[in-house]
Amino acid sequence: MERRRFIKTAGLGAVAAAGAAASFPKVAISQGRVEWRMVTGWPKGLPGLHTGAERFAQRVGDMSGGRLTIKVFAAGELVPAFGGWDAVVSGSAEMAHDAPYYHISKAVGAAFFSAVPFGLTATETSAWINFGGGQEVWDKLYNPFGLMALHGGSTGVQMGGWFRKEIKSVDDLKGLKFRMPGQGGQVLTKLGATVVNLPGGEIFPALQSGAIDGTEWVGPYNDLALGFYKVAPYYYWPGFHEPGTTLQVMMSKAKFEALPKDLQAIIRSAAAAEMDVMTSEFNGKSGPALNELITKHRVQLRQFPRDVLIAFGTASGEVMQEVLDKADPNSKAVAVSFLKFRKEIMAYSRISDLAYMQARLLSFKYPG
Amino acid sequence: MERRRFIKTAGLGAVAAAGAAASFPKVAISQGRVEWRMVTGWPKGLPGLHTGAERFAQRVGDMSGGRLTIKVFAAGELVPAFGGWDAVVSGSAEMAHDAPYYHISKAVGAAFFSAVPFGLTATETSAWINFGGGQEVWDKLYNPFGLMALHGGSTGVQMGGWFRKEIKSVDDLKGLKFRMPGQGGQVLTKLGATVVNLPGGEIFPALQSGAIDGTEWVGPYNDLALGFYKVAPYYYWPGFHEPGTTLQVMMSKAKFEALPKDLQAIIRSAAAAEMDVMTSEFNGKSGPALNELITKHRVQLRQFPRDVLIAFGTASGEVMQEVLDKADPNSKAVAVSFLKFRKEIMAYSRISDLAYMQARLLSFKYPG
Repeated sequence: MERRRFIKTAGLGAVAAAGAAASFPKVAISQGRVEWRMVTGWPKGLPGLHTGAERFAQRVGDMSGGRLTIKVFAAGELVPAFGGWDAVVSGSAEMAHDAPYYHISKAVGAAFFSAVPFGLTATETSAWINFGGGQEVWDKLYNPFGLMALHGGSTGVQMGGWFRKEIKSVDDLKGLKFRMPGQGGQVLTKLGATVVNLPGGEIFPALQSGAIDGTEWVGPYNDLALGFYKVAPYYYWPGFHEPGTTLQVMMSKAKFEALPKDLQAIIRSAAAAEMDVMTSEFNGKSGPALNELITKHRVQLRQFPRDVLIAFGTASGEVMQEVLDKADPNSKAVAVSFLKFRKEIMAYSRISDLAYMQARLLSFKYPG
Repeated sequence: MERRRFIKTAGLGAVAAAGAAASFPKVAISQGRVEWRMVTGWPKGLPGLHTGAERFAQRVGDMSGGRLTIKVFAAGELVPAFGGWDAVVSGSAEMAHDAPYYHISKAVGAAFFSAVPFGLTATETSAWINFGGGQEVWDKLYNPFGLMALHGGSTGVQMGGWFRKEIKSVDDLKGLKFRMPGQGGQVLTKLGATVVNLPGGEIFPALQSGAIDGTEWVGPYNDLALGFYKVAPYYYWPGFHEPGTTLQVMMSKAKFEALPKDLQAIIRSAAAAEMDVMTSEFNGKSGPALNELITKHRVQLRQFPRDVLIAFGTASGEVMQEVLDKADPNSKAVAVSFLKFRKEIMAYSRISDLAYMQARLLSFKYPG
């Protein structure tokens, strides 16, 4: 997933380009009422992501009885989709809702708070942030920029992507022209693929013309709407590159701390609530969407072969080692905390969630 | 898990007995301030559960600037641990925090909102309640009693329990004296076990004397504290009986609806926030606890053999079919909604969370 795609897909490309120069509304404070501007990485109305950001804002308004109103801007309306960090730092907006890995050029450690190849699931990411020391290293990473962030939603495990032909071995990846952004793209590059990073609106025509051989996106709930199944019939699983992409509510630390304590508490709980609600939207709506893709659109589900998954894993380990080697000190502290937690929780997930879901698939009669 | 255990374990047995007759404080409303009483199923300070209920109350107080204060009562302080339903119906308390399956004698469908054998994980339960029609059938189930409920935390997948000897086949379950409450206990009974339901404080001595051969409890985080490893060295996984035990914030519907809209919104978001935070506490703290159990206390981890898991599954299917056959209409509507959702999300979990976690365990080099 990457927000640039959404812009074009939703026909907001022109707005994205023009919007950056739009005038910035001022923060309004009257009679104890505050209005904050929240820029997002999402095109208006994009299910799950933009609707989740709007639900967060609505929640804050409702809980504060209108004392804190958050005006939500779609990607390109106030600043471009990737512009959340700069907008909050410069004061053009008080708040942003986007994916932390959009900002790895500012601080590479940000990636760990959204998703890294073969990293944590959504549930595990929450556990790390809330109870594994994650929030502390996040604060340390963002505070030097005058920023702070809370986790505020997740897409869950993403799918491996859409392919025009089957992937039967690692050799089939060589020369493959595939659209995958970020660290997942670095993994595919190591395995010989030609990785491209097209904006969303250009993916479908590029697939249709044969300019690319495949693309990743999000999962059944978002992918169904974009119609990739029409030109790339093989839908691969699992998505190793984004195992639980988590979104952030990023704010000016000084402006947050200047709010009355009750409004601070409201923002914190609203973000945590979206962690439950948005994540469950992706999970809850992906089952029916997957069913429609298979039964109505005859999509061919395929699991990556074992040797391909191992190659993905090995290359992912190399990419992570490179991050560790090159990271600034605060980013390195994030990576070290994340990797320690990953090891601990993998030992537990193996015998809890994973083992349970495996056992549930054994053959026995159960109603429904 | 079952709250009666907690009472004795925490030395609150006497309080539990005496507390039921304690005087009921009145709801205080002065200058727009409201104080609510929340009874819980948990002994004071029990990590994860009682601390989570207290964090929920703190959250509501902080967000409302003290306009709505929730006074939390441990099990036995105001009413007995199982008394939440009656306390809220009678008006002795405005609110309760406990497990829905404590109240299957009132409405058998309540079980589905906490956990049923071979049912949904915590994440899946959230997805069902928020986006799979679960909340609607829950409302329909509780409203005739003047109640409403929100999901407010989960223990995640529980462990299979502690055994004094290894379970190598279904035959080893025959005659086994095992402590497991509820529908999981019904499953074990079908397989020839002698199921007992001891209060928490009696489990350890019963294991030590040989009166019982094993017990289930929660998971590494809660189990470590209770010391079962000293007398039952085999710790089995996965827990088929409670794959994602979810807790509820149960309220008087009329009193909730009489609150100002902002306080209603605050209660809703505080419950959703605990769904993220409490669940991640159990997940985040179970990794280190498991590590301590294995390395320090030399616990022997064992996976239930495949034929035992299939027998658990078959018996679980029978128990669920019996629920369907005997349920009142509103409980049946819950079961039908749950079972439809279970089928859909199993198809998706198989290729998302499950497949990803399997792939992550393949052999490749990764830092950490």
